[in-house]
Amino acid sequence: MAEASKKRARRSKASSDGRMLGCPSLVWGLVILGSLALNLVTIALLASIYEGNEPSGCRTQSAGLVAEDVREPQSSAKDEEEMVSAREISVSSTSGSRPASKDAVINLDHGDPTMYESFWRRMGRQGDITIAGWQAMSYFSDVTNLCWFLEPDFAHEIRRLHRLVGNAVADECFIIVGTGSTQLFQAALYALSPPDTTEPLNVVSAVPYYSSYPAVTDYLRSGLYRWAGDASTFNGDTYIELVCSPNNPDGSIREAALNSKNGKTIHDLAYYWPQYTPITHAADHDIMLFTVSKSTGHAGTRLGWALVRDKVIAKRMIKFIELNTIGVSKDSQLRAANILKVVSDGYELPICGSEHRLFNYGRKLMSVRWQKLREAVKVSGIFSLPEFQSALCKFTGEKAETYPAFAWLKCEKRGVDDCESFLRNHRILTRSGRHFGMEPKYVRISMLDRDETFDLLIERLSSLH
Amino acid sequence: MAEASKKRARRSKASSDGRMLGCPSLVWGLVILGSLALNLVTIALLASIYEGNEPSGCRTQSAGLVAEDVREPQSSAKDEEEMVSAREISVSSTSGSRPASKDAVINLDHGDPTMYESFWRRMGRQGDITIAGWQAMSYFSDVTNLCWFLEPDFAHEIRRLHRLVGNAVADECFIIVGTGSTQLFQAALYALSPPDTTEPLNVVSAVPYYSSYPAVTDYLRSGLYRWAGDASTFNGDTYIELVCSPNNPDGSIREAALNSKNGKTIHDLAYYWPQYTPITHAADHDIMLFTVSKSTGHAGTRLGWALVRDKVIAKRMIKFIELNTIGVSKDSQLRAANILKVVSDGYELPICGSEHRLFNYGRKLMSVRWQKLREAVKVSGIFSLPEFQSALCKFTGEKAETYPAFAWLKCEKRGVDDCESFLRNHRILTRSGRHFGMEPKYVRISMLDRDETFDLLIERLSSLH
Repeated sequence: MAEASKKRARRSKASSDGRMLGCPSLVWGLVILGSLALNLVTIALLASIYEGNEPSGCRTQSAGLVAEDVREPQSSAKDEEEMVSAREISVSSTSGSRPASKDAVINLDHGDPTMYESFWRRMGRQGDITIAGWQAMSYFSDVTNLCWFLEPDFAHEIRRLHRLVGNAVADECFIIVGTGSTQLFQAALYALSPPDTTEPLNVVSAVPYYSSYPAVTDYLRSGLYRWAGDASTFNGDTYIELVCSPNNPDGSIREAALNSKNGKTIHDLAYYWPQYTPITHAADHDIMLFTVSKSTGHAGTRLGWALVRDKVIAKRMIKFIELNTIGVSKDSQLRAANILKVVSDGYELPICGSEHRLFNYGRKLMSVRWQKLREAVKVSGIFSLPEFQSALCKFTGEKAETYPAFAWLKCEKRGVDDCESFLRNHRILTRSGRHFGMEPKYVRISMLDRDETFDLLIERLSSLH
Repeated sequence: MAEASKKRARRSKASSDGRMLGCPSLVWGLVILGSLALNLVTIALLASIYEGNEPSGCRTQSAGLVAEDVREPQSSAKDEEEMVSAREISVSSTSGSRPASKDAVINLDHGDPTMYESFWRRMGRQGDITIAGWQAMSYFSDVTNLCWFLEPDFAHEIRRLHRLVGNAVADECFIIVGTGSTQLFQAALYALSPPDTTEPLNVVSAVPYYSSYPAVTDYLRSGLYRWAGDASTFNGDTYIELVCSPNNPDGSIREAALNSKNGKTIHDLAYYWPQYTPITHAADHDIMLFTVSKSTGHAGTRLGWALVRDKVIAKRMIKFIELNTIGVSKDSQLRAANILKVVSDGYELPICGSEHRLFNYGRKLMSVRWQKLREAVKVSGIFSLPEFQSALCKFTGEKAETYPAFAWLKCEKRGVDDCESFLRNHRILTRSGRHFGMEPKYVRISMLDRDETFDLLIERLSSLH
């Protein structure tokens, strides 16, 4: 191609030379014809490059070999039903998309943070990233770092953001990047379990606990650790306690329920950001987990980070990620580095206006949504919601309410014991309290979906009596 | 851009209309001038597309606000030594980078495919991808697909590439995307193990087997499966056999060693691409694993795919990836879709010259490298290498040699039993045969590093006697 464009350049030069020398009309005619033909070719070429269509010449070689109707194997309605019931992440035809009509099923079972799309659309090109074809091809990001698969720019922006927000003490910690905080959670279980144990270590969390904890702990039936349920009723001296704060599903601020010197804790701080809760202090624990899914809304990027104090633990977590996935996508890290940079720039650069401030945007939207939700619940009269105390947010400098990423809704209606089924009959998919170690009178509802979906939720809840 | 090319098309149409209507000379002059100007613009445009210049001016804003001296905690030399000895992936200061001097330690322990960088640099902007800040934020890629986290464009390009190369029957299979084929390997172990088993299922592979198989199978001490060693000496009826072909580390073409009706196989086809081996047939097995690391050289993208025949197995593999990492980076998938598209375009678009053909490039480079390696081994006189038979490659239509991604080198020197130590004393880091279930007289050496590193290898091997 480069060769072709050079030839074109040579020809083009020849034609302009020709004009300068005053050629006879035959030559002129040829020049004109050649030039016009060349335009047509280049226009066609550019159109094929930029319109993103499959270039026309490209499937003809193999087209005869493959039937046109070969398509992705699709799952039937029955399959999907099975999947919904069997999965932690329940997928239905409404997952990830806008409701097709006023009567559509709305899926608020998972915390898909699509409400942030509108912020990033508003940011325009600032949020974009271009990755060159030859870039980040190696397994290695930075071999001078203990976490050799961590992109330095991403590490830099993580520390910068924690300093800006003040939600965690990051500067003295090792940063470990993971394929979402789910992978880091498993890395931490691996790191905290003695390798030579004869009995799996007990993993506990106070109810209501995040529904993925039991499933993710037990799916491989590890000999290193096993799920042991509710921390508040656990009797034992040796354990790993998962402390999620603000808590998924109920938004409560938590500290460890247990306090044995042989016990270990993992702090899941996915929701400890100013849009959800007042930042009352800089968290400073042995292992703290964060994720871009809930901080900036980039769930599809599958990227989280752990702040880890102890070097031995950090090394074992890194070892887990080496064995599990040989590091973490560089593309995601490069993109997330830019995303975090834009977030911090929004606060630190004088040229950015308030519309560039992610946490302000998120906080405002969550405040409006929680107000609408509380009103709908009031109008309906058959539900209740947790109440939260306000507190001084050190990030904003203002007294602030709590607006959790999930609504932990209890159905108070007489005769309804299974709130999830009740709501499903009204075409609202939620996650039953059972998955969180609680009664089925409770459900968890995502507050992070797009406006259209959220508005349908409010409309439907208001109409239930 | 599409708009610009339409305008250009309209202008071009206007000029040819003008000619047909027989316009006066002024109009002719304008047509000529416009046409020539247009050529210059398009030439400049094409040059900028193909030369792959980094756009400037994009990351300058935040520099003054962040302390320059905040750096990652660094690991000491002693730590690194520990890490090298403890790890499957051994990291040293030379990993992923060019040798700093003629005397530098060269790390060829891992198969870091940096030799492909030069191809992708040559491709310029074609290999680039821009991802918008608001793009691919959801957990979900395509809920109509069983593998709901698989980007449709990536799936499309995978099928297209397999049709082009003819190395696997993909069209009737489910495609499952994974965070590298390492994750997919674990997903397959999970999917093939009966969930209600009381005894872990035995996982075997014929020696020499890929050194990661035992470690990745056993690190969590799963109750579902366990490493059981060499397939060729395995006595048993129920097992999972890993068949890597061409084999890592020795490049041999393999079929399953065992053949029980209760046995299951996973075919690891990471190296079944035309740069390494003749494509003799389209592989057609129950579970086939591929990765961009070894096909296009994008190891940092951490992306692989499985072709899976059976729907129940596919669903359990998907379930594993849900629990392990809640899907796979969309950024990596979007990038890889473009990378695979460029590879197929290189063969299927008539405008692309031979320099756009990845497999030709890879094959030529591997052929030169293997020739140099065999010469060095001959000059040295103390090593031996496997020999391979040539075969007709259906992709190229020519008889082709085998050029494995790794050299499986045996030290024949009297008194040297530990080839890895021997080479380490000459500042060449390799992986000992012990990790592959073989004697330490063998080592595995990556053939995929950058030219500078490879040339140092050749120089040093030639000088050993």
